[in-house]
Order: sequence, then structure tokens, then C-alpha cells
Amino acid sequence: MLEIEIKVRVPDIKAVREQVIASGGVLTETLTEHDSYYNAPHRDFGITDEALRLRETGTKTTVTYKGPKDTILGSKVREELNLDITDPKIFDSIITRLGFVMVAVVQKRREYYQYQDFTISLDQVEGLGNFVEIELISDSNAEMAAARVDETAIKMGVTGERITLSYLELLLSTR
Amino acid sequence: MLEIEIKVRVPDIKAVREQVIASGGVLTETLTEHDSYYNAPHRDFGITDEALRLRETGTKTTVTYKGPKDTILGSKVREELNLDITDPKIFDSIITRLGFVMVAVVQKRREYYQYQDFTISLDQVEGLGNFVEIELISDSNAEMAAARVDETAIKMGVTGERITLSYLELLLSTR
Repeated sequence: MLEIEIKVRVPDIKAVREQVIASGGVLTETLTEHDSYYNAPHRDFGITDEALRLRETGTKTTVTYKGPKDTILGSKVREELNLDITDPKIFDSIITRLGFVMVAVVQKRREYYQYQDFTISLDQVEGLGNFVEIELISDSNAEMAAARVDETAIKMGVTGERITLSYLELLLSTR
Repeated sequence: MLEIEIKVRVPDIKAVREQVIASGGVLTETLTEHDSYYNAPHRDFGITDEALRLRETGTKTTVTYKGPKDTILGSKVREELNLDITDPKIFDSIITRLGFVMVAVVQKRREYYQYQDFTISLDQVEGLGNFVEIELISDSNAEMAAARVDETAIKMGVTGERITLSYLELLLSTR
């Protein structure tokens, strides 16, 4: 399973929202995501380009491992493994006992839109600004999926600078 | 939260079962536990005396971290953190990506009895034999809790050799 995704910093998130809705995109969820990122004791995820994240949304808690990013046609491609858990505090205790260290917290308000088989996220990130993510989950042919993501970006007016850094990396780079 | 626990190898598990029931112990659950144990990439849990376990019971999947054992009045005392999860395969994938290695599998049929505030387990462990565990969860005063565990062991006829090794360690020691 591959995640094909672009992220673009947008000056006017309201204009993008209007275009997504005008194109038939449907708001499926609005939520606040509180993400805690951990680094490993035996290797530096900043160097290996991995991520271990604990995400709390108020209704759900998920642990995610992300493998190293690859780039195909300007889109990020990386392995993503998601595990639903019941108790964020216990997870934090266990992973801390195992020697992992919480290195950053990213908090954002996110609107999810479903448009065709794309997921479009409008993100207001605390301390960073506004961003749009366009994502496609694909079993095969990353090149074709990346081209479709490009078309949708143009259609929605999401034409600014593409950012390959994660919010975590953006946040750490401002420190 | 401390776990006070003794484990004794028993020649006649049927006699113990009869004594537990005669004393008012109530069978609360019979299940098969399939435990996978992992070792860390950056330290050897066999040396640090920790454990990371994935337990599947058919109805439930739990990840458990156990801290180093301490011994008070012949009873094992150690920190135990339990996290319910939804998907054992995804957990295995994530922990493997993080560099942990599955080192052993312990499979047993376990009968849980509730007797007063004790949990008594009658275990038939594949490749190892029959054992009885008597456990008390205590917030405070480990010495008093350990003495109560002793009394109950005598009452139930669980008077054989106390084993401080885990099933994992017993299994690894027979290799």
C-alpha cells in the first residue's frame, strides 16, 4: 500500500475551500489532531527519514510508523503503518520505557474533503501557517497516481510551492 | 501499580484445581494465550531483565511491557504496562520496522480463578509442563501483599519449587 501525497503552502485557504466544494468535494470530517513524534534510541529518524507518531483526535488514537520518503513526479511516496490503540498515556509510557524520546508536538485543525478517490486536507497548523494536502492511496503504479494528484492540484488552484518536508520537519527547522 | 506474583511447577495440576474450587475460587476464564516476545535492537532484554510481549487470546490482543524483576519475600515484583490494540499483524510490522526482533513464542492453555482478591492461574505450557501462578495487584506495601500470597499458596497446596524465571526464560534455557 502506497500513499501518494503532495503538500502545498497556501496564502488563501478560503479560496481553495470554495474551489474544492464547487468541484464536488464533500467535507467528511473536521477535527483537531494532536500529534506527538518520537525518536528512537538506536538510530536518528531525522537521518533515516522515518517517523513514529502518536495521533490523538478526541475520538480516536492511532500509532503510525512512516518509512523513508521517496519522490516520484514531485509526489511523496512512503510506507505507512497504522495501529489503532485504546490508551495514549499507556502507549507513551511503554515507548518511553523502551528508550524512545518524544521530540515534538504538532497540533493542527484539519478539514478532510473527499473528492473522487482523493482525500484533500485543509490544514491550519499551530505555529506554521496554512497548507493543503492532496492524497491518493494506491496499490500499484505510483507514476499514474502521481499524475492524477497533479491534475487535481491544478484544478483546485493549489499551485504554490510543493513542500516535501513534514510538519514535524518544518517545525524543527524553525527552532 | 505493582504485580506481586509467585509461580510454582506442580506435579499434579488436578489436585490444585480441586483445592482452589473447594476454597471458593471461581473459574473466570479458560483461554489459549499465544505470546510473542521481542528483543530490542539497542539493548538485550535478557540482560536488562525487561520484556516486550504481544499476547493474542482469540478475543483480545494486548501489548505488555514488563520492567526488571525485583524479589520481595520470594515473590516477583515488577512494573507492568498493558496496552490493548486492534491488530497484532500491524503491531508486529511496526515493531519490526523499528528494529525489534521476535525471539520466542510461548503458547499455553490457562485457567483463571478468582479467589478473594487473588488471581490464580493454572497453566499448561507447550513444551514446558504445568505451573500455578498466584498474583495480587497492589498499590502499596509489597511486603504485606507478598505475605498474603504465601498464605494462599500454602492453603492451595502450591508448595513446590518457586520459579522466578518467566516462561520465556524457561523456554530459552531449554534450547
